[in-house]
Amino acid sequence: MENICTERIAHLREEMKKEGITAWLVTSADYHNSEYVAAYFKTIEFLCGFTGEAATLVILPEEADLWVDGRYFIQAEKEIKGSGVMLQKMGEPGVPTVHAFLKEKMPDNGTLGFDGLCVTKHEGSALRELLAYKNVTLRADLDLIGRIWGQDRPALPSHPVFLPDEEKYAGETAADKLGRLREKLKEHHAQYYLTSKLDEIMWLYNIRGNDVEYNPVALSYAFVSMDHQYLFIQDSEVTDELREHAKKYDIFLHHYFALNEFLRKMKFDGKILFDPDYVSYAIYESLKTSVEEGTGRHIEDMTVEKPGVIDLMKAVKNPTEIRNFREVYIEDSAALTKFIFWIKQKMQNPETAKNQTELTAAEHLDELRAQISDYVELSFGTISAYGPNAAMMHYAPTKEDHAKLKAEGMLLVDSGGHYLRGTTDVTRTIALGPVTEEMKKDYTLTAISQLQLMGTQFLKGSCGMTLDIMAREPMWSRGMDYKCGTGHGIGNLLNVHEGPQTIRYRMREQADLTPFAPGMVTSDEPGVYKAGRYGIRIETILLCVDRQTTADGIFYGFEPLTFVPLDRDLLDVRYLTPETRTLLNRYHKEVLEKIAPFLNDEEQQWLEGQCAEI
Amino acid sequence: MENICTERIAHLREEMKKEGITAWLVTSADYHNSEYVAAYFKTIEFLCGFTGEAATLVILPEEADLWVDGRYFIQAEKEIKGSGVMLQKMGEPGVPTVHAFLKEKMPDNGTLGFDGLCVTKHEGSALRELLAYKNVTLRADLDLIGRIWGQDRPALPSHPVFLPDEEKYAGETAADKLGRLREKLKEHHAQYYLTSKLDEIMWLYNIRGNDVEYNPVALSYAFVSMDHQYLFIQDSEVTDELREHAKKYDIFLHHYFALNEFLRKMKFDGKILFDPDYVSYAIYESLKTSVEEGTGRHIEDMTVEKPGVIDLMKAVKNPTEIRNFREVYIEDSAALTKFIFWIKQKMQNPETAKNQTELTAAEHLDELRAQISDYVELSFGTISAYGPNAAMMHYAPTKEDHAKLKAEGMLLVDSGGHYLRGTTDVTRTIALGPVTEEMKKDYTLTAISQLQLMGTQFLKGSCGMTLDIMAREPMWSRGMDYKCGTGHGIGNLLNVHEGPQTIRYRMREQADLTPFAPGMVTSDEPGVYKAGRYGIRIETILLCVDRQTTADGIFYGFEPLTFVPLDRDLLDVRYLTPETRTLLNRYHKEVLEKIAPFLNDEEQQWLEGQCAEI
Repeated sequence: MENICTERIAHLREEMKKEGITAWLVTSADYHNSEYVAAYFKTIEFLCGFTGEAATLVILPEEADLWVDGRYFIQAEKEIKGSGVMLQKMGEPGVPTVHAFLKEKMPDNGTLGFDGLCVTKHEGSALRELLAYKNVTLRADLDLIGRIWGQDRPALPSHPVFLPDEEKYAGETAADKLGRLREKLKEHHAQYYLTSKLDEIMWLYNIRGNDVEYNPVALSYAFVSMDHQYLFIQDSEVTDELREHAKKYDIFLHHYFALNEFLRKMKFDGKILFDPDYVSYAIYESLKTSVEEGTGRHIEDMTVEKPGVIDLMKAVKNPTEIRNFREVYIEDSAALTKFIFWIKQKMQNPETAKNQTELTAAEHLDELRAQISDYVELSFGTISAYGPNAAMMHYAPTKEDHAKLKAEGMLLVDSGGHYLRGTTDVTRTIALGPVTEEMKKDYTLTAISQLQLMGTQFLKGSCGMTLDIMAREPMWSRGMDYKCGTGHGIGNLLNVHEGPQTIRYRMREQADLTPFAPGMVTSDEPGVYKAGRYGIRIETILLCVDRQTTADGIFYGFEPLTFVPLDRDLLDVRYLTPETRTLLNRYHKEVLEKIAPFLNDEEQQWLEGQCAEI
Repeated sequence: MENICTERIAHLREEMKKEGITAWLVTSADYHNSEYVAAYFKTIEFLCGFTGEAATLVILPEEADLWVDGRYFIQAEKEIKGSGVMLQKMGEPGVPTVHAFLKEKMPDNGTLGFDGLCVTKHEGSALRELLAYKNVTLRADLDLIGRIWGQDRPALPSHPVFLPDEEKYAGETAADKLGRLREKLKEHHAQYYLTSKLDEIMWLYNIRGNDVEYNPVALSYAFVSMDHQYLFIQDSEVTDELREHAKKYDIFLHHYFALNEFLRKMKFDGKILFDPDYVSYAIYESLKTSVEEGTGRHIEDMTVEKPGVIDLMKAVKNPTEIRNFREVYIEDSAALTKFIFWIKQKMQNPETAKNQTELTAAEHLDELRAQISDYVELSFGTISAYGPNAAMMHYAPTKEDHAKLKAEGMLLVDSGGHYLRGTTDVTRTIALGPVTEEMKKDYTLTAISQLQLMGTQFLKGSCGMTLDIMAREPMWSRGMDYKCGTGHGIGNLLNVHEGPQTIRYRMREQADLTPFAPGMVTSDEPGVYKAGRYGIRIETILLCVDRQTTADGIFYGFEPLTFVPLDRDLLDVRYLTPETRTLLNRYHKEVLEKIAPFLNDEEQQWLEGQCAEI
């Protein structure tokens, strides 16, 4: 059966033929290698129907192949049916990598094409080197899919930016950040910085945008020299406020699509530092042309490729940010604590219980959060998952599809907000009525995991891989595990998942090896997931702090930012060791001190019970 | 002041000039990138006097530069004085890497020379790519230092090989190992295997050599096709026994230096798999010429670069090896236990105590070990370090320089043997008389560290970085640390330090991420080192074993192979948690059961006291 996809692919093959292109490569990325991309960039879905977040598609004259990882095998199989595209299940025996496939299939002197704005410099160069021996040419300057998509293509997102007060919220002026960045450049013997990474551009210039759902970022590029700074952004996003801010800090505003031309006209008299995992191959090629023509020197002598220079600066929160985080996390924790009391009350009375669903619960929590003074938006869609739904890690209720709550078992709520004072993320699992012994055991083990990691003191130089077992040990020693990372970094009114640090027991990417530093804010979220039965997660956000310096080194530890009680109705104290009991009591004491002032009498009384010493 | 080194460097520059070479690069490696190298390969010492184990030297017409890491800053400064060589302190601010330096200093169209047999394919290719844009030529076919060293150069080591009984000791015939290797090759779509790594060649063919002190390996290369297998080895090392073994398994014996010629004559009709971190650039170049001329195809299409294929097979001990390891570790543990009793007895009596030194202690232990039936040699020089000497991690007493023992404080003994049944490595720290409260505390923490790691159950996929904190936590939580890794792999009558698995809290090289697998043998050796005062280390060797399979995954754990009591006189039970107390009692119970049969009555009685339940 022919479908719309076969037509589109046929159309693409015609365009390829016209341009003399042997193979066309399509990625899931936008121009900024963002975690989430707008509809405008969903070219793989357009061509073969696959809607997952990560994939690679290669179109050859006689075949088309889609690579997806294990998460998407079943979904992809279903979605690409009838498109004529072959599924390549990554990691399965006998399945070649995209690189191995291209090495095999590309003919000598062939041409490989792709939208150079959607492929990173890193990947583009790797492809060039991979195929150089076959004398394959890369064509990175065409957007063939744009041609065939035409008028029907969704618009590029474009929303006005906003500017939180610098002194109050950023804690460091754009000028100071630029100064620190320039110091970093000097350390690397570079004089220019080029970036495509949206959250670092927002952080650097102290602006925020609205172009990606739940991520307050604006599509943009930035370029920084020793004396000047430039922001490339769509005209429709520029507000008077931004114009003033730009004037104040001498930020030159250029149109979003003017970067290439700007680079071509630039006279470089020093090295350019950039992150090859974010700057696109097309932009790099422009840079190369400009640099080599302008200076007569080779691009390799004029660039420093260095990932994560700003990421690391951004991850370490400054004193103002830390003060704001502490404050807003308490208010956010109070909202969640009120919610827990509310839902428990509702479920105690059959009359009020009968109308509650995952969705009414989420809505009530979202409302409580929206009442916080500097609330901006949710930091992600509230996960309110009852019973077996909580065993699906990324479940979220919808208007069409959600469960009714019953006065038994557990409700898992994972939620967070963006505030001017920071971004929050927190999970608690709540007993709605009677629970089983097994649920209590699993909840208590999760609590021990969460507390044990929070209580760890560790040597400077330790990364998340070093620490992860402190959370997993109570699970692993009993043959249990949760199939996800234990922790991720959190932005300041930026992405709720931000790098570079993570907490996982094995390496997924280089950034996972980033050592912890005081000021980093990271989640601590172990869980127990029993498919078809229930799910438990406890997520407390931790601030990395200095602990002590001794003859043997500098030691760090964590302080909680989140102060929401662990559920007394789910704790089975028999599983607590003396050490974890102490950690729990110490935490609950702090919860009571910090949260009680936000509660009414009834709520306070309940919280006292929840936090009483065990 | 001119010295012999300046002359040699001047001589080298003349040779460089004759050959039209701009820069000459010297590494510390032998032809096999071995951990320890013979005097023949100490070309850096010959040229500039530096005797450390790792360095890079670059000779240019107008300057010469030596790169060393932090361990060697002081030593190198002293040793290269007067040689005219400039010291480049790796990692210090403003010090370029060797690559950055070459990028800077190499002129366009220059020639970079090095002994291609002493530089890995990985490094050679990196240099080629680094300098390609400057059109720099690599000359890897010359041994200019050999030319100027001439007659005075120490001989290449050359000792006859020996062959432990295959059935009894290897537990797998060379034919079966070759079969498994060929399966691995097929998995990677390769038909040939080329290797330079000495311990893997010994393992593959079930032979052993004597060319490196404490490492029972022979200088050699191996090449394996789907039907044939070849060993390249010096004629002087070939014994009748080896000839018979070679006949039995159709191993073709060729001269050590015949590999290049062999590769040039080979007709390849499939891909060659090799480890680019061990095969030298010169050998790779021969392979390239042969492959490209013979097949008309590009070398990149005909090779698979894959590190550690045999390393991983070798690291996982088979049932025979495990049985032998268990057995010989008990006998080796009994020898050390007898030694501990002996030295404690000697030190109790002032008459017998007064003649004891670090050296007499080491000699007595070495004698006890030599009495074990299948003893071959020590697996490294016995470390017997008293008092402050034990704070130096790699201290070893010499005839000229060693301490007298006193009936107080602690003696640290780190030792091991090669036996036909396996290689051992064990450390115990022994009270020789009264000790301080601080010593007892530190010893007990070390014991807890060692036991806690040993007692950990962990998910398949965990590597040493995942586990290390289980050993360090008791230290870190008190602001203490030891400045070395916690564990290393151990060979079977091969190198006492073998890869790929390690236990460290941060990554040093890719192999550190190797997941544990049942059958791996790894050390567990935390410690406390107080400079100028004392050192404590407890090292127990662990076998990785299967523990349980649940819905959440496959879980592994460790069983001790070493059974030597922890020193009762140094334990302060107040620091033991209920969990570590249980681990200690369980361990001591096993020690008593396994070791008592090897002891006389007096020793047995003492051991019962040492192992009594706490």
